Amino acid sequence: MTRARIAIDAMGGDYAPDEIVAGALRAREELDVEVLLVGDPEKINRYLQEHAPSTTPEIIPATDVVEMNEVPLVALKRKPNASINVAMELVKAGQADAVVSAGHSGAAMAAALLRLGRLPGIDRPAIGAVLPTLMAGKSVLVLDVGANVDCRPKYLEQFAIMGSIYSKYVLDVPDPKVGLLNIGEEDCKGNDIAVGANQLLRKNKQISFLGNAEGRDVMSGQFDVIVCDGFVGNILLKFAESLGSVLVQILREELPRGWRGRIGTAFLRPNLRKIKQRMDHAEHGGGLLLGVDGICIISHGSSQAPSIFNAIRLAQEAVDHQVSQRIQACYQQAVALEDQN
Amino acid sequence: MTRARIAIDAMGGDYAPDEIVAGALRAREELDVEVLLVGDPEKINRYLQEHAPSTTPEIIPATDVVEMNEVPLVALKRKPNASINVAMELVKAGQADAVVSAGHSGAAMAAALLRLGRLPGIDRPAIGAVLPTLMAGKSVLVLDVGANVDCRPKYLEQFAIMGSIYSKYVLDVPDPKVGLLNIGEEDCKGNDIAVGANQLLRKNKQISFLGNAEGRDVMSGQFDVIVCDGFVGNILLKFAESLGSVLVQILREELPRGWRGRIGTAFLRPNLRKIKQRMDHAEHGGGLLLGVDGICIISHGSSQAPSIFNAIRLAQEAVDHQVSQRIQACYQQAVALEDQN
Repeated sequence: MTRARIAIDAMGGDYAPDEIVAGALRAREELDVEVLLVGDPEKINRYLQEHAPSTTPEIIPATDVVEMNEVPLVALKRKPNASINVAMELVKAGQADAVVSAGHSGAAMAAALLRLGRLPGIDRPAIGAVLPTLMAGKSVLVLDVGANVDCRPKYLEQFAIMGSIYSKYVLDVPDPKVGLLNIGEEDCKGNDIAVGANQLLRKNKQISFLGNAEGRDVMSGQFDVIVCDGFVGNILLKFAESLGSVLVQILREELPRGWRGRIGTAFLRPNLRKIKQRMDHAEHGGGLLLGVDGICIISHGSSQAPSIFNAIRLAQEAVDHQVSQRIQACYQQAVALEDQN
Repeated sequence: MTRARIAIDAMGGDYAPDEIVAGALRAREELDVEVLLVGDPEKINRYLQEHAPSTTPEIIPATDVVEMNEVPLVALKRKPNASINVAMELVKAGQADAVVSAGHSGAAMAAALLRLGRLPGIDRPAIGAVLPTLMAGKSVLVLDVGANVDCRPKYLEQFAIMGSIYSKYVLDVPDPKVGLLNIGEEDCKGNDIAVGANQLLRKNKQISFLGNAEGRDVMSGQFDVIVCDGFVGNILLKFAESLGSVLVQILREELPRGWRGRIGTAFLRPNLRKIKQRMDHAEHGGGLLLGVDGICIISHGSSQAPSIFNAIRLAQEAVDHQVSQRIQACYQQAVALEDQN
């Protein structure tokens, strides 16, 4: 296996380029990856001279940036030399295996669709996010968390297939249990899309569909993959991401009460740090855009170096486990099966 | 002010009638309310004889029950003597001021619509739920959390008006700040319904609309009222309700690690109990069905006595603060304003 080459959108994100470059340099040192820094060479070099004068990562010049307030398609067309465009081109040309961007997520998605295209059989790519569960060491993949605000039942079915493949090969779950996010356990519950998706998922032989998952089931550990439209998924994800602070705030208010509380809390400082870390979204690195012909990790705009490092690790795992190729193979198999019938 | 008379659906819920009656008896003792136990006299009396032989609450006979697997409208028609039907009739006849039920929530909603009817100006009643926030002592009202899986923009506008009135008069928020649950802050973000609702809310002079609320803003304390369709709201609510156990589980795993952790945790037992309580849904009692001509509290099927007690307190507050009358008055005012223009 050759080393994964990851194109980093060094200009995207609230803390670009400094924090992005810092995360990339750490990944270059600690992971078995090559990083290509895509962005304004002057700005990147200024950071390197100051913080890492002896390192010489590869820099791919791209002077434009898609700003957060721009309309993705318009901006991508008007700025062919935007860092996200250039990064995607590297993947398309086979010079990189994956893209990591903390810039405008709509622009990243649009650039991936335009430059890399969809995988055959996939109508809509989806963003998958990994959340912790009640069961220690077990996580759950939720998709879509923001790529598609309006969905049809068959898109949700495609999300289930892509999610199962990701869960199996990257998250090492032998037989991923799939759930459909809904307002009740019974198959007949929910809005029209949920009811229709339930029927498709029940019939699909390529996945292990357990049934509907309610809000309370998301973090129960019962499900490995949970599918939903990008509107609900995005709200749920952002809600879940705020829990780290909610938790720490509640602990800060409740723990130090009374003399017992004050003494107890004094002993717990390292454990509390650990708890925050476990809930923190920086640990997850970002979402994987599934369904495009290439690997693309979409990180938070607020990402700093640790988050970018984790995003690069995520990209590396997706590349090493050939996620895109496996999704494609799965669809070819499905088509072959249909032809037989 | 006369004492609020609350009709309790004694047959509804996983732990009916015992836990329902237990909660009602406690409310009768500790709150300034009258309770009417609606249900099978034999079963209710059996509980009373065993656990509270000296108390004599009023019992309204109703021998049928709507089971969880029944289709609401069919069951309500087939069982005119079902406890939820009888309880609603008491409110309609002016013999009770409110209903509390932990039974089939769809049936409770349908019975409220059929027997009490909608308030003028309201297309769809909504269920409101109160969640804790990061700011100590501050809560947020989220609606709809399950009554309407498909919504139109104008329904969400009505939810905002009803929520503001509830927040102001029952939760004592002088000028409730309203948010629209959405996937981005910008007004143009979201699906068609969210975009349409944003426009209506921006124009509405009867409420203080702050703008879109993302998932991470729900528990921030920035918003007093958050409106959404019942599909998203139900998923979010059930997710939020599972956090108590998630939190306790994480604390149980992380706190006792290492010798510092073990010592610290030993001191903290009372504080940890407090934390669980703060997150626990039993503390909230249930959701208020807003928009019907009467007060109706819909509790969890899994409600036990403490939860029923809190639901009765919620009903009492809604009665005492004349929530229904105020919503009606607000709509009359809106109509008058429109006539002037």
